[in-house]
Amino acid sequence: MLPSTTRALVTTLREDARMVVELVEQPLPAPGPDDVLVQVEAAPINPSDLGLMFGPALMAEATYELGRVEAPVPPAAMKALSARVGQPLGIGNEGAGVVVGAGTNAQHMIGRRVAAFAGAMYSQYRVIPAAECMVLPEGITARQGAAAFVNPLTALAFIETMRAEGLSALVHTAAASNLGQMLVRLCLADGIPLVNIVRSAQQVALLRAMGAHYVLDSTSATFSQELEQALAETGARVVFDAIGGGPLLGTILTAMERVATADGAYSRYGSTQVKRGFVYGALDMAPITLPRTLGFVWDVSGWLLSPMMERLGPEARARVHGRVAAELTTTFACHYKGELSLADALSREAVADYTRRATGSKFLILPCNSSIDM
Amino acid sequence: MLPSTTRALVTTLREDARMVVELVEQPLPAPGPDDVLVQVEAAPINPSDLGLMFGPALMAEATYELGRVEAPVPPAAMKALSARVGQPLGIGNEGAGVVVGAGTNAQHMIGRRVAAFAGAMYSQYRVIPAAECMVLPEGITARQGAAAFVNPLTALAFIETMRAEGLSALVHTAAASNLGQMLVRLCLADGIPLVNIVRSAQQVALLRAMGAHYVLDSTSATFSQELEQALAETGARVVFDAIGGGPLLGTILTAMERVATADGAYSRYGSTQVKRGFVYGALDMAPITLPRTLGFVWDVSGWLLSPMMERLGPEARARVHGRVAAELTTTFACHYKGELSLADALSREAVADYTRRATGSKFLILPCNSSIDM
Repeated sequence: MLPSTTRALVTTLREDARMVVELVEQPLPAPGPDDVLVQVEAAPINPSDLGLMFGPALMAEATYELGRVEAPVPPAAMKALSARVGQPLGIGNEGAGVVVGAGTNAQHMIGRRVAAFAGAMYSQYRVIPAAECMVLPEGITARQGAAAFVNPLTALAFIETMRAEGLSALVHTAAASNLGQMLVRLCLADGIPLVNIVRSAQQVALLRAMGAHYVLDSTSATFSQELEQALAETGARVVFDAIGGGPLLGTILTAMERVATADGAYSRYGSTQVKRGFVYGALDMAPITLPRTLGFVWDVSGWLLSPMMERLGPEARARVHGRVAAELTTTFACHYKGELSLADALSREAVADYTRRATGSKFLILPCNSSIDM
Repeated sequence: MLPSTTRALVTTLREDARMVVELVEQPLPAPGPDDVLVQVEAAPINPSDLGLMFGPALMAEATYELGRVEAPVPPAAMKALSARVGQPLGIGNEGAGVVVGAGTNAQHMIGRRVAAFAGAMYSQYRVIPAAECMVLPEGITARQGAAAFVNPLTALAFIETMRAEGLSALVHTAAASNLGQMLVRLCLADGIPLVNIVRSAQQVALLRAMGAHYVLDSTSATFSQELEQALAETGARVVFDAIGGGPLLGTILTAMERVATADGAYSRYGSTQVKRGFVYGALDMAPITLPRTLGFVWDVSGWLLSPMMERLGPEARARVHGRVAAELTTTFACHYKGELSLADALSREAVADYTRRATGSKFLILPCNSSIDM
């Protein structure tokens, strides 16, 4: 007998400018002929999930009750979010679990453990097209497979993007993140020069211990010089920036411009070399500031995983999915600070911890305390 | 007998952080076999010339003597300019004059009036490859042909860039400039929807009188709403920005994002429509600030005429040069506030006037008070 309802976390921006995140019981549709019903065992809290979950709400003013968090949203932020007002939205980009039901064309999936990038995964049960599921290799647990999409595919897609720009080395900010650690392993394995930028001596030590060669602390007094040297040595002219707000991106692009113009004669318009910035995250929601020291040949763009995966095409997608599945416990291994039930994820203590977005404070939600070995 | 020296304006950033612009007498090379020697009759002072001429020097602290201006450069700006320290650089991107000498392969050019985009045109005489000269049509004066390159080609190249992005309408800032007026005429002639953004009611009146349909005053209280309406009506998703510093570019891209998301369902990542910003000028040298209200699909780039012209290829270049030559007194006509000799261009009064970079304060330098009818 398949369940007809599921408990899930939903986020609603109310018209009165209150962001409400709550645990609700909601109807669960029956799987269509090509769908599977997944009992979700584990789903990570990624920074991109927090953007939807709490958005720009003022968490210092949040109020908490069992299974419910409520926080005010500043008036200035309401305009940008007007399209979501009044709509309860499911949360949790990705997760893993076991197929416990299936439509007529997907019966072979029953009993398999799968990962999915389907959204609304902070839910006990979730109906998903079978074609969108990544079947996890034998012996991989839901904990190991929960984050098989966002970070691994982002790291792989960074490298694809770099190559599409005709470049062969890259810079990464907030590089001690789970994603950053993956990128370190991936670039070491593939022999790609990577300049890691972090924000503390501890993070430097962490990445160096992993074998990373270039690890720069942006809070160091000698950061600018070290950055220029690393850029000169690696030839890195593309940066993937998780932070977005503030001056760091402009500082990196300026250093690229300085390195690019260091050899040649003075040109009033600066270097003609490509200098490419991609902003994929929003750890700092302040405006991005770009100084006018970049010359005239520079490009800064938003970067989003899904359109990039679309562009890769089905064959390349299958190839990167295959690599992720094969390297889940090595290259793409993910570390968590703790595990939370759906209700615990809305406790004051947990919210304070995971909304810090600090290195080493990533959590896993276990929507369903399944008896299946996770 | 050809001259062996020429008087010219040169700019030098000294090691002691003083920017010195002065009138000097310097040797003039003999033309090579494929060169012409041009007696420069007229050369405009474009904003791009000011960038080289004075750069970030603090003009309020400038000192003036006959044929010489000196101003301090802030320490913060010295780093970016280190490559030009100690080098006297010629000024004046473009100009027009008469060919008074030529190498063996360019004898047919003698006596012709030409325009050129050769740099260092604030000079009585200039040796230039004949192939780089645009021969002006019969009856066109040096005053009319002096600005045949920078603004006309920029306006035409904006439209080429827009088309290369697959777009069919555009936004332009500082739109009452000489370039902006050209773009208005060009877009009217070619039926291209153009959203003009200016900074005063006077400038609105100026462009409206020329027949421009969308002219928005960014200082108006209703600017945001008018901008969104204009973007919705025209479908403009690319902006060419002369200003660069400050929030305007981000405001325009945010409005594009709002219009792009107005119809559809809420997406946490915003619209997937292209939103494209090109920064081609630096009327404001402050950092560009981009708010995080652009969604994830956006691109902002530096834009520079010369690489764009290179990309067009020789055939397209010849075509646009032909159009410019044919429409110099109509579409591409340029208006000047006044005319200055080389020495007068360094007077306190003149510098104060043309460094304001305000609409209607464009000047023409007449390097050589030639007896030839200008």
